[in-house]
Amino acid sequence: MKLSALPTPCLVLDRGILARNLDTMARAVARHSTALRPHMKTAKSIDVARMALGTPLAQTAGITVSTLAEAEYFLSHGITDQLYAVGITPQKLERVAELNGTAGDIKIITDDPDVATAIAAHPAGARTLIEIDCGEGRGGIGPDSPAVLEIASRLGPRLAGIMTHAGHSYSGRSIADMAAIAETERQGAIIAAERLRAAGHACPIVSMGSSPTALYAGSLAGITEVRAGVYMLGDLFQAEIGTHGPADIAVTVLTSVIGRRPAERRIVVDAGGIALSKDRSTESAPHDWGFGHARDIMGEPTLGHALVKRANQEHGIIDLDPTLPDPGFRIGDKLRIAPNHVCMTSAAHDRYFVVDGSDEVIAVWRRINGW
Amino acid sequence: MKLSALPTPCLVLDRGILARNLDTMARAVARHSTALRPHMKTAKSIDVARMALGTPLAQTAGITVSTLAEAEYFLSHGITDQLYAVGITPQKLERVAELNGTAGDIKIITDDPDVATAIAAHPAGARTLIEIDCGEGRGGIGPDSPAVLEIASRLGPRLAGIMTHAGHSYSGRSIADMAAIAETERQGAIIAAERLRAAGHACPIVSMGSSPTALYAGSLAGITEVRAGVYMLGDLFQAEIGTHGPADIAVTVLTSVIGRRPAERRIVVDAGGIALSKDRSTESAPHDWGFGHARDIMGEPTLGHALVKRANQEHGIIDLDPTLPDPGFRIGDKLRIAPNHVCMTSAAHDRYFVVDGSDEVIAVWRRINGW
Repeated sequence: MKLSALPTPCLVLDRGILARNLDTMARAVARHSTALRPHMKTAKSIDVARMALGTPLAQTAGITVSTLAEAEYFLSHGITDQLYAVGITPQKLERVAELNGTAGDIKIITDDPDVATAIAAHPAGARTLIEIDCGEGRGGIGPDSPAVLEIASRLGPRLAGIMTHAGHSYSGRSIADMAAIAETERQGAIIAAERLRAAGHACPIVSMGSSPTALYAGSLAGITEVRAGVYMLGDLFQAEIGTHGPADIAVTVLTSVIGRRPAERRIVVDAGGIALSKDRSTESAPHDWGFGHARDIMGEPTLGHALVKRANQEHGIIDLDPTLPDPGFRIGDKLRIAPNHVCMTSAAHDRYFVVDGSDEVIAVWRRINGW
Repeated sequence: MKLSALPTPCLVLDRGILARNLDTMARAVARHSTALRPHMKTAKSIDVARMALGTPLAQTAGITVSTLAEAEYFLSHGITDQLYAVGITPQKLERVAELNGTAGDIKIITDDPDVATAIAAHPAGARTLIEIDCGEGRGGIGPDSPAVLEIASRLGPRLAGIMTHAGHSYSGRSIADMAAIAETERQGAIIAAERLRAAGHACPIVSMGSSPTALYAGSLAGITEVRAGVYMLGDLFQAEIGTHGPADIAVTVLTSVIGRRPAERRIVVDAGGIALSKDRSTESAPHDWGFGHARDIMGEPTLGHALVKRANQEHGIIDLDPTLPDPGFRIGDKLRIAPNHVCMTSAAHDRYFVVDGSDEVIAVWRRINGW
């Protein structure tokens, strides 16, 4: 089947670009003697997970997930070694225990002494990492905090190590910025791990990561695994901050022209706020891409600077590039929209239509959405 | 089951508030001798549709839908009279024909002469409304455009009337603003309908509507039906523009506290950008509610001015109200987040957990997402 025959809007994934992005990260991590634990929060697909785990270039260490729905799905496909990298609540321990009772080794994270007590008290308490804040200001406690040792003591044999996430690396605008943040992230992890060991705790896992810091870390000494996910699929924001190029965006939204406003050099398409998401990541980037960059059906940027300026629920309004001749679209013609933030855009879609450098659909890969 | 026992994040719908919102709109439309065609794009639920169609206060005329997935779903539940209110493409005619072949009367819209030719040529071409632009600048042609008559001629017996949508009514900030836009919307519809009739075409359907204009129109003379949808569920944006009050928000996101940062008077919850959407509608409203307003588990605003300031994929960061005592949250405590834009927020969730003024879950209603 050709892309032109697909109902729109829908999500297109270019397998060749995905493979190249996986390769780039695998090479970056292979500079260090550290394993890669791919984060599946972006792709949410077993087919992508198999590719991410299958690269011969880097040692891989299971996967990272962002929801228990992902954990259950990937476990059902045989991936037992997982890290659920969102702070656990006592209520969620039961579902984790059920999954781990069916051969799973789903590790959880906490930054809270009371939760550590609940984990230790649960008859099937999972292996647990202590979450460290290395500057992002979201989850985690400081590496120097007394609570690190308090939580470790309460976890007892459940303690499996520490983890941190430098989400603020996405505010970096140069490789030097990101390398500096990676070193802060590494230091945060190392300091906490050393404190645990000095107090007599085993700390087998020392986990850090974000796509920018995994790519550009100068050293990963002392780190046992790095986590990264969004690099697999790519988006306009990552292209803006320079972690990949504009041609490395593997996921686009296929859409049909549903309205023409030639006097305004504007078209209306059937990819609106739901199909694209309302994410405006590039608002803070060097160049603001509105709600997405319109490309031709082959995914090539032949439409120049054609932006989704407005996104209503099922309508996207595209301002065509005023420096190019009018492309003369007719109703039903198809375009592909490169997303601002691929995690958000993909979340509205339940499957990928997979291509590989052409307009031939070679596979359909399902996604696991929801919680 | 109690709300406190639900896995989070999830969507909560208060049936009593929904019923009140339906009643308000039914009374507003009943002032006129015009039917209400509820738009199901927001609720996407047969249970909500049955309530919207079942009110004895207003005459109702089938439903409006925004996707063919909705059309198929509501048809499978016995609602045959539908208007698919997004510009049709030739490719989509086949799926419409299939649905109409199974007892459906799904009407479609176009503003394009070539598409009108395709509709007329299709062996099972659907009844079609011509889309008029009454000032929104999205879909449609001007009511005075020569294309109105051209499209009508090409449609021939498929022509069923005209429709328009004053989406710009949401930029109104007073009842007078919205009443004025409603009159422009009505005039646009009437002018086009009169031109069709003067040229000898039947124009049985004259359809207009948006929640603000349906509520506040001074006259609907000449209009056979009004469409509105978002009023059913309510959100912060609508409360800001005054089409309902802050207590009329029927849908909230139930979420658990997953992090505490007492020094910053901040908590982290498990409703992030996917569960809440990244919609920032209230950015342009009198008051900016960030990514949502945090309320207590009963949905009451006892937390004061507690806002979701940041929304990462699965993390929401809430700044607590500095004028209130620290609520002393513990990990696992539950809150409900009122959304900026309920159409966008609901789209990430596949079901509503229904309550009615208490924390007891009385039903689970499914949603039809996707396309």
